[in-house]
Amino acid sequence: MIEFDYDRESERYRDIVEKELRRIASCENGNVYPKLLDAMFYSLEVGGKRIRPCLVLAVCEMLGGNLENALPFACGLEMIHTYSLIHDDLPCVDNDDMRRGRPSNHKLFGEGMAVFAGCGLLSLAFEVMLKAVLKSNDRGGLLAMNEIAYRSGAHGMLSGQAADIENEGSTSQDEEVLAYIHEHKTADMLTAAVLAGAYTAGADEKTVDALRAYALSMGLLFQITDAILDVKGDSAMMGKTLGKDAANGKMTYVGLYGLDGARMAAEKAAKLALDALKGIESPDYLEETIRRMLVRSR
Amino acid sequence: MIEFDYDRESERYRDIVEKELRRIASCENGNVYPKLLDAMFYSLEVGGKRIRPCLVLAVCEMLGGNLENALPFACGLEMIHTYSLIHDDLPCVDNDDMRRGRPSNHKLFGEGMAVFAGCGLLSLAFEVMLKAVLKSNDRGGLLAMNEIAYRSGAHGMLSGQAADIENEGSTSQDEEVLAYIHEHKTADMLTAAVLAGAYTAGADEKTVDALRAYALSMGLLFQITDAILDVKGDSAMMGKTLGKDAANGKMTYVGLYGLDGARMAAEKAAKLALDALKGIESPDYLEETIRRMLVRSR
Repeated sequence: MIEFDYDRESERYRDIVEKELRRIASCENGNVYPKLLDAMFYSLEVGGKRIRPCLVLAVCEMLGGNLENALPFACGLEMIHTYSLIHDDLPCVDNDDMRRGRPSNHKLFGEGMAVFAGCGLLSLAFEVMLKAVLKSNDRGGLLAMNEIAYRSGAHGMLSGQAADIENEGSTSQDEEVLAYIHEHKTADMLTAAVLAGAYTAGADEKTVDALRAYALSMGLLFQITDAILDVKGDSAMMGKTLGKDAANGKMTYVGLYGLDGARMAAEKAAKLALDALKGIESPDYLEETIRRMLVRSR
Repeated sequence: MIEFDYDRESERYRDIVEKELRRIASCENGNVYPKLLDAMFYSLEVGGKRIRPCLVLAVCEMLGGNLENALPFACGLEMIHTYSLIHDDLPCVDNDDMRRGRPSNHKLFGEGMAVFAGCGLLSLAFEVMLKAVLKSNDRGGLLAMNEIAYRSGAHGMLSGQAADIENEGSTSQDEEVLAYIHEHKTADMLTAAVLAGAYTAGADEKTVDALRAYALSMGLLFQITDAILDVKGDSAMMGKTLGKDAANGKMTYVGLYGLDGARMAAEKAAKLALDALKGIESPDYLEETIRRMLVRSR
Protein backbone atom coordinates (compact mmCIF):
# COMPACT_ATOMS: atom_id res chain seq x y z
CA MET A 1 0.00 0.00 0.00
CA ILE A 2 1.31 3.40 -1.01
CA GLU A 3 1.29 5.93 1.80
CA PHE A 4 -0.95 8.94 1.32
CA ASP A 5 1.07 12.02 0.32
CA TYR A 6 -0.98 15.22 0.50
CA ASP A 7 1.53 17.41 -1.30
CA ARG A 8 1.97 14.97 -4.15
CA GLU A 9 -1.80 14.62 -4.54
CA SER A 10 -2.31 18.38 -4.46
CA GLU A 11 0.37 18.86 -7.06
CA ARG A 12 -1.20 16.20 -9.27
CA TYR A 13 -4.60 17.92 -9.08
CA ARG A 14 -3.05 21.35 -9.60
CA ASP A 15 -1.19 20.15 -12.70
CA ILE A 16 -4.39 18.75 -14.19
CA VAL A 17 -6.24 22.01 -13.53
CA GLU A 18 -3.49 24.31 -14.81
CA LYS A 19 -3.01 22.23 -17.95
CA GLU A 20 -6.73 22.47 -18.67
CA LEU A 21 -6.80 26.22 -17.94
CA ARG A 22 -3.95 26.68 -20.43
CA ARG A 23 -5.84 24.61 -22.99
CA ILE A 24 -8.94 26.77 -22.48
CA ALA A 25 -6.81 29.91 -22.81
CA SER A 26 -5.14 28.74 -26.01
CA CYS A 27 -8.16 27.72 -28.04
CA GLU A 28 -11.68 28.70 -29.00
CA ASN A 29 -11.00 32.35 -28.28
CA GLY A 30 -10.26 33.61 -31.79
CA ASN A 31 -13.00 36.22 -31.81
CA VAL A 32 -12.48 37.54 -28.28
CA TYR A 33 -11.21 41.14 -28.25
CA PRO A 34 -7.44 40.72 -27.78
CA LYS A 35 -6.96 43.06 -24.82
CA LEU A 36 -9.98 41.55 -23.06
CA LEU A 37 -8.56 38.08 -23.58
CA ASP A 38 -5.15 39.18 -22.27
CA ALA A 39 -6.71 40.73 -19.18
CA MET A 40 -8.79 37.63 -18.44
CA PHE A 41 -5.95 35.15 -18.70
CA TYR A 42 -3.36 37.39 -17.06
CA SER A 43 -5.17 37.04 -13.76
CA LEU A 44 -6.15 33.41 -14.29
CA GLU A 45 -2.54 32.45 -14.97
CA VAL A 46 -1.08 34.31 -11.99
CA GLY A 47 -2.80 31.65 -9.92
CA GLY A 48 -2.37 30.62 -6.35
CA LYS A 49 -2.62 27.27 -4.64
CA ARG A 50 -5.75 26.42 -6.65
CA ILE A 51 -7.36 25.20 -3.42
CA ARG A 52 -10.92 25.19 -4.79
CA PRO A 53 -10.36 23.28 -8.04
CA CYS A 54 -8.09 20.78 -6.23
CA LEU A 55 -10.95 20.14 -3.82
CA VAL A 56 -13.37 19.53 -6.69
CA LEU A 57 -11.05 16.89 -8.15
CA ALA A 58 -10.13 15.34 -4.79
CA VAL A 59 -13.76 14.87 -3.73
CA CYS A 60 -14.74 13.44 -7.12
CA GLU A 61 -11.85 10.97 -7.02
CA MET A 62 -12.48 10.07 -3.38
CA LEU A 63 -16.04 9.08 -4.26
CA GLY A 64 -14.92 6.93 -7.20
CA GLY A 65 -15.87 9.46 -9.87
CA ASN A 66 -14.06 10.19 -13.11
CA LEU A 67 -11.70 13.19 -12.93
CA GLU A 68 -12.57 14.07 -16.53
CA ASN A 69 -16.16 14.69 -15.47
CA ALA A 70 -15.12 16.98 -12.62
CA LEU A 71 -12.47 18.97 -14.50
CA PRO A 72 -14.73 21.51 -16.29
CA PHE A 73 -16.36 22.38 -12.96
CA ALA A 74 -12.98 22.66 -11.22
CA CYS A 75 -11.84 25.08 -13.91
CA GLY A 76 -15.14 26.95 -13.89
CA LEU A 77 -14.90 27.48 -10.15
CA GLU A 78 -11.31 28.72 -10.40
CA MET A 79 -12.32 31.21 -13.12
CA ILE A 80 -15.09 32.49 -10.86
CA HIS A 81 -12.71 32.76 -7.90
CA THR A 82 -10.27 34.71 -10.11
CA TYR A 83 -13.01 37.05 -11.34
CA SER A 84 -13.89 37.87 -7.72
CA LEU A 85 -10.25 38.79 -6.99
CA ILE A 86 -10.08 41.10 -10.04
CA HIS A 87 -13.20 42.96 -8.88
CA ASP A 88 -12.08 43.00 -5.23
CA ASP A 89 -8.87 44.81 -6.25
CA LEU A 90 -10.70 47.60 -8.13
CA PRO A 91 -10.27 51.17 -6.83
CA CYS A 92 -14.01 51.29 -6.07
CA VAL A 93 -13.74 48.13 -3.94
CA ASP A 94 -10.50 47.40 -2.02
CA ASN A 95 -8.20 49.52 -4.19
CA ASP A 96 -5.25 47.13 -4.22
CA ASP A 97 -2.41 47.75 -6.66
CA MET A 98 -0.83 44.35 -6.19
CA ARG A 99 -2.12 40.78 -6.14
CA ARG A 100 0.15 37.82 -5.52
CA GLY A 101 3.26 39.91 -6.02
CA ARG A 102 2.20 41.25 -9.41
CA PRO A 103 0.25 44.34 -10.50
CA SER A 104 -3.47 43.84 -10.09
CA ASN A 105 -5.59 43.57 -13.21
CA HIS A 106 -6.78 47.18 -13.42
CA LYS A 107 -3.24 48.54 -12.91
CA LEU A 108 -2.21 46.83 -16.13
CA PHE A 109 -5.37 46.96 -18.24
CA GLY A 110 -7.39 49.86 -16.84
CA GLU A 111 -10.45 49.83 -14.62
CA GLY A 112 -13.12 49.41 -17.28
CA MET A 113 -11.25 46.52 -18.87
CA ALA A 114 -10.78 44.90 -15.44
CA VAL A 115 -14.54 45.05 -14.84
CA PHE A 116 -15.11 43.38 -18.22
CA ALA A 117 -12.29 40.84 -17.70
CA GLY A 118 -13.90 39.73 -14.44
CA CYS A 119 -17.28 39.30 -16.11
CA GLY A 120 -15.56 37.58 -19.02
CA LEU A 121 -14.16 34.94 -16.68
CA LEU A 122 -17.55 34.51 -15.01
CA SER A 123 -19.23 34.03 -18.38
CA LEU A 124 -16.49 31.74 -19.66
CA ALA A 125 -16.87 29.59 -16.54
CA PHE A 126 -20.49 28.97 -17.45
CA GLU A 127 -19.58 28.33 -21.08
CA VAL A 128 -17.00 25.71 -20.09
CA MET A 129 -19.40 24.01 -17.67
CA LEU A 130 -22.30 24.12 -20.14
CA LYS A 131 -20.16 22.60 -22.87
CA ALA A 132 -19.40 19.68 -20.58
CA VAL A 133 -23.07 19.18 -19.70
CA LEU A 134 -24.14 19.39 -23.35
CA LYS A 135 -21.55 16.75 -24.23
CA SER A 136 -22.12 14.34 -21.35
CA ASN A 137 -25.85 14.86 -20.75
CA ASP A 138 -24.93 14.20 -17.11
CA ARG A 139 -27.36 15.43 -14.46
CA GLY A 140 -24.51 15.48 -11.92
CA GLY A 141 -22.84 18.14 -14.04
CA LEU A 142 -26.01 20.23 -14.05
CA LEU A 143 -26.26 19.95 -10.26
CA ALA A 144 -22.59 20.94 -9.90
CA MET A 145 -23.11 23.98 -12.13
CA ASN A 146 -26.23 24.93 -10.20
CA GLU A 147 -24.36 24.73 -6.89
CA ILE A 148 -21.54 26.88 -8.27
CA ALA A 149 -23.95 29.46 -9.75
CA TYR A 150 -25.91 29.76 -6.51
CA ARG A 151 -22.95 29.96 -4.14
CA SER A 152 -20.87 32.32 -6.25
CA GLY A 153 -23.80 34.58 -7.15
CA ALA A 154 -26.01 37.01 -5.27
CA HIS A 155 -27.03 34.33 -2.79
CA GLY A 156 -23.42 33.58 -1.95
CA MET A 157 -20.05 35.13 -2.66
CA LEU A 158 -21.40 38.41 -4.06
CA SER A 159 -23.39 39.04 -0.89
CA GLY A 160 -20.19 38.52 1.09
CA GLN A 161 -18.36 41.00 -1.14
CA ALA A 162 -21.22 43.50 -0.86
CA ALA A 163 -21.34 43.21 2.95
CA ASP A 164 -17.56 43.54 3.07
CA ILE A 165 -17.41 46.92 1.30
CA GLU A 166 -20.41 48.24 3.20
CA ASN A 167 -18.79 47.45 6.55
CA GLU A 168 -15.24 48.48 5.68
CA GLY A 169 -13.76 50.86 8.20
CA SER A 170 -16.70 50.23 10.48
CA THR A 171 -15.76 50.62 14.13
CA SER A 172 -18.48 48.32 15.38
CA GLN A 173 -16.98 44.90 14.87
CA ASP A 174 -20.21 43.03 14.92
CA GLU A 175 -20.04 39.26 15.23
CA GLU A 176 -23.10 38.62 13.11
CA VAL A 177 -21.83 40.74 10.22
CA LEU A 178 -18.42 39.07 10.40
CA ALA A 179 -20.00 35.61 10.27
CA TYR A 180 -22.17 36.68 7.33
CA ILE A 181 -19.20 37.95 5.33
CA HIS A 182 -17.19 34.81 6.00
CA GLU A 183 -20.03 32.49 5.27
CA HIS A 184 -20.61 34.02 1.88
CA LYS A 185 -17.20 35.20 0.74
CA THR A 186 -15.26 32.12 1.77
CA ALA A 187 -17.38 29.19 2.96
CA ASP A 188 -19.79 29.35 0.03
CA MET A 189 -17.00 28.97 -2.52
CA LEU A 190 -15.36 26.10 -0.63
CA THR A 191 -18.76 24.43 -0.27
CA ALA A 192 -19.35 24.85 -4.00
CA ALA A 193 -16.00 23.12 -4.62
CA VAL A 194 -16.70 20.16 -2.37
CA LEU A 195 -20.27 19.68 -3.61
CA ALA A 196 -19.33 20.09 -7.29
CA GLY A 197 -16.88 17.23 -6.77
CA ALA A 198 -19.59 15.17 -5.09
CA TYR A 199 -22.22 15.79 -7.77
CA THR A 200 -19.88 14.98 -10.65
CA ALA A 201 -19.12 11.67 -8.91
CA GLY A 202 -22.86 10.97 -8.66
CA ALA A 203 -22.86 11.03 -4.84
CA ASP A 204 -26.02 10.06 -2.95
CA GLU A 205 -27.93 12.49 -0.76
CA LYS A 206 -26.43 11.29 2.53
CA THR A 207 -22.89 11.81 1.23
CA VAL A 208 -23.80 15.25 -0.13
CA ASP A 209 -25.20 16.22 3.28
CA ALA A 210 -22.05 15.05 5.10
CA LEU A 211 -19.79 16.88 2.69
CA ARG A 212 -21.86 20.05 2.95
CA ALA A 213 -21.40 20.00 6.74
CA TYR A 214 -17.67 19.39 6.27
CA ALA A 215 -17.35 22.28 3.83
CA LEU A 216 -19.20 24.79 5.99
CA SER A 217 -16.84 24.12 8.93
CA MET A 218 -13.84 24.19 6.62
CA GLY A 219 -14.95 27.57 5.29
CA LEU A 220 -15.09 28.97 8.80
CA LEU A 221 -11.69 27.45 9.66
CA PHE A 222 -10.17 28.88 6.49
CA GLN A 223 -11.31 32.39 7.30
CA ILE A 224 -10.20 32.23 10.94
CA THR A 225 -6.73 30.93 10.11
CA ASP A 226 -6.46 33.50 7.36
CA ALA A 227 -7.13 36.25 9.90
CA ILE A 228 -4.51 34.75 12.22
CA LEU A 229 -1.97 34.55 9.40
CA ASP A 230 -2.79 38.11 8.42
CA VAL A 231 -1.86 39.29 11.91
CA LYS A 232 1.18 37.02 12.16
CA GLY A 233 2.43 38.34 8.83
CA ASP A 234 2.77 34.82 7.45
CA SER A 235 0.53 35.30 4.50
CA ALA A 236 1.60 32.62 2.05
CA MET A 237 -1.73 30.84 2.19
CA MET A 238 -3.80 33.57 0.60
CA GLY A 239 -0.97 35.41 -1.11
CA LYS A 240 -1.82 38.54 0.80
CA THR A 241 0.43 41.33 1.93
CA LEU A 242 1.19 41.74 5.59
CA GLY A 243 -1.78 42.50 7.81
CA LYS A 244 -3.72 43.82 4.84
CA ASP A 245 -7.20 43.15 6.07
CA ALA A 246 -6.41 44.58 9.48
CA ALA A 247 -4.76 47.60 7.87
CA ASN A 248 -7.81 48.11 5.65
CA GLY A 249 -9.96 48.41 8.75
CA LYS A 250 -11.77 45.19 7.91
CA MET A 251 -13.29 43.03 10.57
CA THR A 252 -11.46 39.80 11.28
CA TYR A 253 -11.83 37.02 13.85
CA VAL A 254 -8.63 38.15 15.52
CA GLY A 255 -9.90 41.69 15.89
CA LEU A 256 -13.10 40.36 17.38
CA TYR A 257 -11.86 37.58 19.69
CA GLY A 258 -8.14 38.18 20.06
CA LEU A 259 -5.46 35.73 18.90
CA ASP A 260 -6.21 33.07 21.54
CA GLY A 261 -9.93 33.27 21.00
CA ALA A 262 -9.43 32.91 17.26
CA ARG A 263 -7.22 29.86 17.79
CA MET A 264 -9.86 28.22 19.94
CA ALA A 265 -12.53 28.93 17.31
CA ALA A 266 -10.22 27.37 14.71
CA GLU A 267 -9.79 24.18 16.76
CA LYS A 268 -13.54 23.91 17.17
CA ALA A 269 -14.24 24.39 13.46
CA ALA A 270 -11.58 21.81 12.57
CA LYS A 271 -13.14 19.24 14.89
CA LEU A 272 -16.59 19.80 13.40
CA ALA A 273 -15.20 19.40 9.88
CA LEU A 274 -13.41 16.15 10.73
CA ASP A 275 -16.48 14.80 12.55
CA ALA A 276 -18.58 15.36 9.44
CA LEU A 277 -16.33 12.98 7.50
CA LYS A 278 -17.04 9.99 9.74
CA GLY A 279 -19.27 8.11 7.30
CA ILE A 280 -17.01 8.79 4.28
CA GLU A 281 -14.54 6.22 2.90
CA SER A 282 -10.87 7.23 2.32
CA PRO A 283 -11.25 10.83 3.45
CA ASP A 284 -7.44 11.31 3.66
CA TYR A 285 -7.25 14.34 1.40
CA LEU A 286 -10.16 16.11 3.06
CA GLU A 287 -8.85 15.35 6.56
CA GLU A 288 -5.35 16.52 5.73
CA THR A 289 -6.74 19.73 4.20
CA ILE A 290 -8.25 20.55 7.58
CA ARG A 291 -5.04 19.65 9.48
CA ARG A 292 -2.94 21.82 7.17
CA MET A 293 -5.24 24.78 7.68
CA LEU A 294 -5.24 24.32 11.42
CA VAL A 295 -1.49 23.95 11.84
CA ARG A 296 -0.93 27.32 10.21
CA SER A 297 -2.97 29.04 12.88
CA ARG A 298 -0.74 27.85 15.74
CA MET B 1 -59.32 35.65 -38.52
CA ILE B 2 -57.98 38.20 -36.06
CA GLU B 3 -55.68 40.76 -37.64
CA PHE B 4 -52.10 40.78 -36.39
CA ASP B 5 -51.50 43.63 -33.94
CA TYR B 6 -47.83 44.17 -33.22
CA ASP B 7 -48.31 46.55 -30.31
CA ARG B 8 -50.81 44.30 -28.60
CA GLU B 9 -48.55 41.27 -29.02
CA SER B 10 -45.52 43.18 -27.72
CA GLU B 11 -47.49 44.35 -24.72
CA ARG B 12 -48.65 40.81 -24.01
CA TYR B 13 -45.07 39.51 -24.10
CA ARG B 14 -43.80 42.42 -22.02
CA ASP B 15 -46.48 41.84 -19.38
CA ILE B 16 -45.50 38.16 -19.11
CA VAL B 17 -41.81 39.05 -18.77
CA GLU B 18 -42.30 41.84 -16.24
CA LYS B 19 -44.64 39.74 -14.12
CA GLU B 20 -42.04 36.97 -14.02
CA LEU B 21 -39.21 39.42 -13.24
CA ARG B 22 -41.27 40.76 -10.32
CA ARG B 23 -41.87 37.21 -9.13
CA ILE B 24 -38.13 36.50 -9.28
CA ALA B 25 -37.43 39.72 -7.39
CA SER B 26 -39.95 38.97 -4.67
CA CYS B 27 -38.96 35.45 -3.74
CA GLU B 28 -36.01 33.18 -3.09
CA ASN B 29 -33.77 36.09 -2.21
CA GLY B 30 -33.99 36.03 1.57
CA ASN B 31 -30.27 35.63 2.13
CA VAL B 32 -29.08 38.14 -0.46
CA TYR B 33 -27.42 41.18 1.13
CA PRO B 34 -30.24 43.77 1.19
CA LYS B 35 -28.40 46.64 -0.49
CA LEU B 36 -27.09 44.30 -3.20
CA LEU B 37 -30.61 43.04 -3.84
CA ASP B 38 -31.95 46.60 -4.00
CA ALA B 39 -29.24 47.61 -6.46
CA MET B 40 -29.89 44.59 -8.70
CA PHE B 41 -33.64 45.02 -8.93
CA TYR B 42 -33.54 48.82 -9.10
CA SER B 43 -31.98 48.60 -12.54
CA LEU B 44 -33.96 45.56 -13.64
CA GLU B 45 -37.24 47.28 -12.77
CA VAL B 46 -36.41 50.57 -14.52
CA GLY B 47 -36.78 48.59 -17.70
CA GLY B 48 -37.13 49.66 -21.29
CA LYS B 49 -39.03 48.15 -24.18
CA ARG B 50 -37.84 44.66 -23.20
CA ILE B 51 -37.05 44.05 -26.87
CA ARG B 52 -34.85 41.00 -26.25
CA PRO B 53 -37.14 38.99 -23.96
CA CYS B 54 -40.16 39.82 -26.16
CA LEU B 55 -38.23 38.36 -29.10
CA VAL B 56 -37.49 35.18 -27.15
CA LEU B 57 -41.19 34.68 -26.45
CA ALA B 58 -42.34 35.72 -29.94
CA VAL B 59 -40.00 33.29 -31.69
CA CYS B 60 -40.91 30.43 -29.37
CA GLU B 61 -44.63 31.04 -29.92
CA MET B 62 -44.21 31.49 -33.67
CA LEU B 63 -42.62 28.03 -33.85
CA GLY B 64 -45.40 26.40 -31.82
CA GLY B 65 -43.41 26.21 -28.58
CA ASN B 66 -44.72 26.66 -25.07
CA LEU B 67 -44.19 30.17 -23.67
CA GLU B 68 -43.59 28.69 -20.21
CA ASN B 69 -40.49 26.95 -21.55
CA ALA B 70 -39.11 30.14 -23.06
CA LEU B 71 -39.84 32.47 -20.14
CA PRO B 72 -36.81 31.68 -17.92
CA PHE B 73 -34.51 32.34 -20.87
CA ALA B 74 -36.33 35.55 -21.78
CA CYS B 75 -35.88 36.75 -18.19
CA GLY B 76 -32.26 35.55 -18.05
CA LEU B 77 -31.42 37.48 -21.19
CA GLU B 78 -33.07 40.65 -19.86
CA MET B 79 -31.07 40.35 -16.62
CA ILE B 80 -27.88 40.04 -18.64
CA HIS B 81 -28.82 43.03 -20.80
CA THR B 82 -29.50 45.05 -17.63
CA TYR B 83 -26.18 44.03 -16.08
CA SER B 84 -24.37 45.29 -19.18
CA LEU B 85 -26.09 48.67 -18.86
CA ILE B 86 -25.11 49.00 -15.18
CA HIS B 87 -21.46 48.36 -16.04
CA ASP B 88 -21.56 50.58 -19.14
CA ASP B 89 -22.67 53.51 -16.97
CA LEU B 90 -19.77 53.16 -14.49
CA PRO B 91 -17.32 56.07 -14.21
CA CYS B 92 -14.53 53.82 -15.51
CA VAL B 93 -16.56 52.94 -18.61
CA ASP B 94 -18.98 55.55 -20.08
CA ASN B 95 -19.46 57.58 -16.89
CA ASP B 96 -23.17 58.22 -17.30
CA ASP B 97 -25.09 59.66 -14.36
CA MET B 98 -28.49 58.93 -15.85
CA ARG B 99 -30.14 55.94 -17.48
CA ARG B 100 -33.69 55.99 -18.80
CA GLY B 101 -34.40 59.26 -17.01
CA ARG B 102 -33.32 57.99 -13.59
CA PRO B 103 -30.00 58.03 -11.73
CA SER B 104 -27.71 55.27 -12.94
CA ASN B 105 -27.00 52.40 -10.56
CA HIS B 106 -23.65 53.63 -9.18
CA LYS B 107 -25.03 57.12 -8.52
CA LEU B 108 -27.52 55.60 -6.09
CA PHE B 109 -25.62 52.62 -4.68
CA GLY B 110 -21.93 53.45 -5.15
CA GLU B 111 -19.47 52.13 -7.71
CA GLY B 112 -18.40 48.98 -5.91
CA MET B 113 -22.00 47.97 -5.29
CA ALA B 114 -22.87 48.67 -8.93
CA VAL B 115 -20.08 46.33 -10.06
CA PHE B 116 -21.45 43.63 -7.76
CA ALA B 117 -25.08 44.32 -8.72
CA GLY B 118 -24.20 43.79 -12.38
CA CYS B 119 -22.46 40.50 -11.61
CA GLY B 120 -25.36 39.57 -9.34
CA LEU B 121 -27.79 39.90 -12.25
CA LEU B 122 -25.48 37.89 -14.51
CA SER B 123 -25.23 35.11 -11.93
CA LEU B 124 -28.95 35.20 -11.20
CA ALA B 125 -29.67 34.88 -14.91
CA PHE B 126 -27.78 31.59 -14.96
CA GLU B 127 -29.48 30.45 -11.76
CA VAL B 128 -32.93 31.10 -13.23
CA MET B 129 -32.07 29.33 -16.49
CA LEU B 130 -30.41 26.39 -14.71
CA LYS B 131 -33.42 25.94 -12.47
CA ALA B 132 -35.62 25.64 -15.55
CA VAL B 133 -33.29 23.09 -17.16
CA LEU B 134 -33.03 21.05 -13.95
CA LYS B 135 -36.82 20.96 -13.75
CA SER B 136 -37.62 20.23 -17.38
CA ASN B 137 -34.60 18.16 -18.37
CA ASP B 138 -35.08 19.82 -21.74
CA ARG B 139 -32.09 19.87 -24.08
CA GLY B 140 -33.59 22.88 -25.88
CA GLY B 141 -33.22 24.84 -22.65
CA LEU B 142 -29.57 23.83 -22.38
CA LEU B 143 -28.96 24.95 -25.95
CA ALA B 144 -30.71 28.26 -25.27
CA MET B 145 -28.59 28.85 -22.17
CA ASN B 146 -25.46 27.95 -24.09
CA GLU B 147 -26.31 30.44 -26.84
CA ILE B 148 -26.97 33.17 -24.27
CA ALA B 149 -23.75 32.43 -22.33
CA TYR B 150 -21.62 32.48 -25.48
CA ARG B 151 -23.12 35.59 -27.06
CA SER B 152 -23.24 37.65 -23.87
CA GLY B 153 -19.78 36.58 -22.68
CA ALA B 154 -16.23 37.19 -23.83
CA HIS B 155 -16.99 35.82 -27.29
CA GLY B 156 -19.86 38.25 -27.71
CA MET B 157 -21.20 41.27 -25.89
CA LEU B 158 -18.20 41.74 -23.58
CA SER B 159 -15.84 41.92 -26.56
CA GLY B 160 -18.07 44.64 -28.01
CA GLN B 161 -17.96 46.54 -24.71
CA ALA B 162 -14.18 46.11 -24.48
CA ALA B 163 -13.65 47.33 -28.06
CA ASP B 164 -15.99 50.24 -27.39
CA ILE B 165 -14.02 51.67 -24.46
CA GLU B 166 -10.69 51.07 -26.18
CA ASN B 167 -11.78 53.03 -29.25
CA GLU B 168 -13.63 55.82 -27.48
CA GLY B 169 -12.55 59.25 -28.60
CA SER B 170 -10.59 57.69 -31.43
CA THR B 171 -10.35 59.99 -34.43
CA SER B 172 -9.88 57.21 -36.93
CA GLN B 173 -13.41 56.00 -37.50
CA ASP B 174 -12.48 52.63 -38.82
CA GLU B 175 -15.21 50.64 -40.54
CA GLU B 176 -13.91 47.29 -39.37
CA VAL B 177 -13.79 48.33 -35.70
CA LEU B 178 -17.27 49.81 -35.94
CA ALA B 179 -18.65 46.60 -37.43
CA TYR B 180 -16.91 44.57 -34.71
CA ILE B 181 -18.41 46.65 -31.89
CA HIS B 182 -21.89 46.46 -33.38
CA GLU B 183 -21.70 42.77 -34.10
CA HIS B 184 -20.81 41.98 -30.52
CA LYS B 185 -22.52 44.64 -28.47
CA THR B 186 -25.84 44.58 -30.28
CA ALA B 187 -26.26 41.82 -32.83
CA ASP B 188 -24.99 39.06 -30.54
CA MET B 189 -27.60 39.82 -27.89
CA LEU B 190 -30.43 40.01 -30.44
CA THR B 191 -29.23 36.77 -31.98
CA ALA B 192 -29.16 35.16 -28.55
CA ALA B 193 -32.77 36.26 -28.08
CA VAL B 194 -34.01 34.88 -31.40
CA LEU B 195 -32.12 31.60 -31.06
CA ALA B 196 -33.09 31.08 -27.42
CA GLY B 197 -36.71 31.30 -28.56
CA ALA B 198 -36.01 28.82 -31.36
CA TYR B 199 -34.23 26.30 -29.12
CA THR B 200 -36.90 26.36 -26.43
CA ALA B 201 -39.46 25.59 -29.17
CA GLY B 202 -37.35 22.64 -30.31
CA ALA B 203 -36.63 24.17 -33.74
CA ASP B 204 -34.84 22.11 -36.38
CA GLU B 205 -31.43 23.03 -37.76
CA LYS B 206 -32.75 24.66 -40.93
CA THR B 207 -35.05 26.95 -38.95
CA VAL B 208 -32.23 27.83 -36.54
CA ASP B 209 -30.00 28.75 -39.51
CA ALA B 210 -32.66 30.96 -41.09
CA LEU B 211 -33.36 32.72 -37.79
CA ARG B 212 -29.65 33.25 -37.14
CA ALA B 213 -29.35 35.00 -40.52
CA TYR B 214 -32.42 37.09 -39.69
CA ALA B 215 -31.02 38.08 -36.29
CA LEU B 216 -27.61 39.11 -37.62
CA SER B 217 -29.19 41.51 -40.13
CA MET B 218 -31.60 42.77 -37.50
CA GLY B 219 -28.68 43.49 -35.19
CA LEU B 220 -27.00 45.58 -37.85
CA LEU B 221 -30.25 47.38 -38.62
CA PHE B 222 -30.82 48.10 -34.93
CA GLN B 223 -27.43 49.70 -34.53
CA ILE B 224 -27.69 51.80 -37.71
CA THR B 225 -31.13 53.13 -36.85
CA ASP B 226 -29.96 53.81 -33.32
CA ALA B 227 -27.13 55.95 -34.69
CA ILE B 228 -29.59 57.81 -36.94
CA LEU B 229 -31.97 58.40 -34.01
CA ASP B 230 -29.05 59.57 -31.90
CA VAL B 231 -28.26 62.27 -34.46
CA LYS B 232 -31.92 63.16 -35.06
CA GLY B 233 -32.41 63.56 -31.31
CA ASP B 234 -35.35 61.18 -31.37
CA SER B 235 -33.97 58.73 -28.92
CA ALA B 236 -37.01 56.99 -27.49
CA MET B 237 -35.98 53.63 -28.87
CA MET B 238 -32.93 53.18 -26.69
CA GLY B 239 -33.85 55.65 -23.98
CA LYS B 240 -30.71 57.64 -24.67
CA THR B 241 -30.12 61.33 -24.33
CA LEU B 242 -29.67 63.48 -27.39
CA GLY B 243 -26.69 62.65 -29.56
CA LYS B 244 -24.96 60.95 -26.64
CA ASP B 245 -22.83 58.53 -28.59
CA ALA B 246 -21.76 61.24 -31.02
CA ALA B 247 -21.05 63.59 -28.09
CA ASN B 248 -19.00 60.89 -26.38
CA GLY B 249 -16.75 60.71 -29.43
CA LYS B 250 -17.94 57.20 -30.19
CA MET B 251 -17.97 55.86 -33.69
CA THR B 252 -21.40 55.52 -35.28
CA TYR B 253 -22.67 54.58 -38.73
CA VAL B 254 -23.79 58.15 -39.31
CA GLY B 255 -20.35 59.52 -38.50
CA LEU B 256 -18.83 57.03 -40.90
CA TYR B 257 -21.26 57.14 -43.85
CA GLY B 258 -23.32 60.28 -43.32
CA LEU B 259 -27.09 60.27 -42.78
CA ASP B 260 -27.98 59.20 -46.33
CA GLY B 261 -25.38 56.44 -46.37
CA ALA B 262 -26.62 55.16 -43.03
CA ARG B 263 -30.21 55.13 -44.32
CA MET B 264 -29.17 53.11 -47.35
CA ALA B 265 -27.30 50.65 -45.13
CA ALA B 266 -30.44 50.34 -42.98
CA GLU B 267 -32.63 49.54 -46.02
CA LYS B 268 -30.17 46.90 -47.12
CA ALA B 269 -30.00 45.25 -43.68
CA ALA B 270 -33.80 45.24 -43.43
CA LYS B 271 -34.14 43.53 -46.81
CA LEU B 272 -31.63 40.84 -45.80
CA ALA B 273 -33.49 40.22 -42.53
CA LEU B 274 -36.87 39.89 -44.27
CA ASP B 275 -35.38 37.63 -46.96
CA ALA B 276 -34.07 35.28 -44.29
CA LEU B 277 -37.65 34.69 -43.06
CA LYS B 278 -38.86 33.29 -46.38
CA GLY B 279 -39.07 29.66 -45.26
CA ILE B 280 -40.69 30.49 -41.89
CA GLU B 281 -44.43 30.18 -41.21
CA SER B 282 -46.37 33.14 -39.67
CA PRO B 283 -43.37 35.44 -39.35
CA ASP B 284 -45.60 38.49 -38.70
CA TYR B 285 -43.99 39.54 -35.44
CA LEU B 286 -40.44 39.21 -36.77
CA GLU B 287 -41.28 41.03 -40.01
CA GLU B 288 -42.99 43.86 -38.20
CA THR B 289 -40.05 44.20 -35.81
CA ILE B 290 -37.86 44.94 -38.82
CA ARG B 291 -40.36 47.38 -40.35
CA ARG B 292 -40.67 49.26 -37.06
CA MET B 293 -36.92 49.60 -36.76
CA LEU B 294 -36.60 50.76 -40.34
CA VAL B 295 -39.35 53.36 -40.23
CA ARG B 296 -37.62 55.16 -37.38
CA SER B 297 -34.56 55.77 -39.49
CA ARG B 298 -36.42 57.72 -42.17
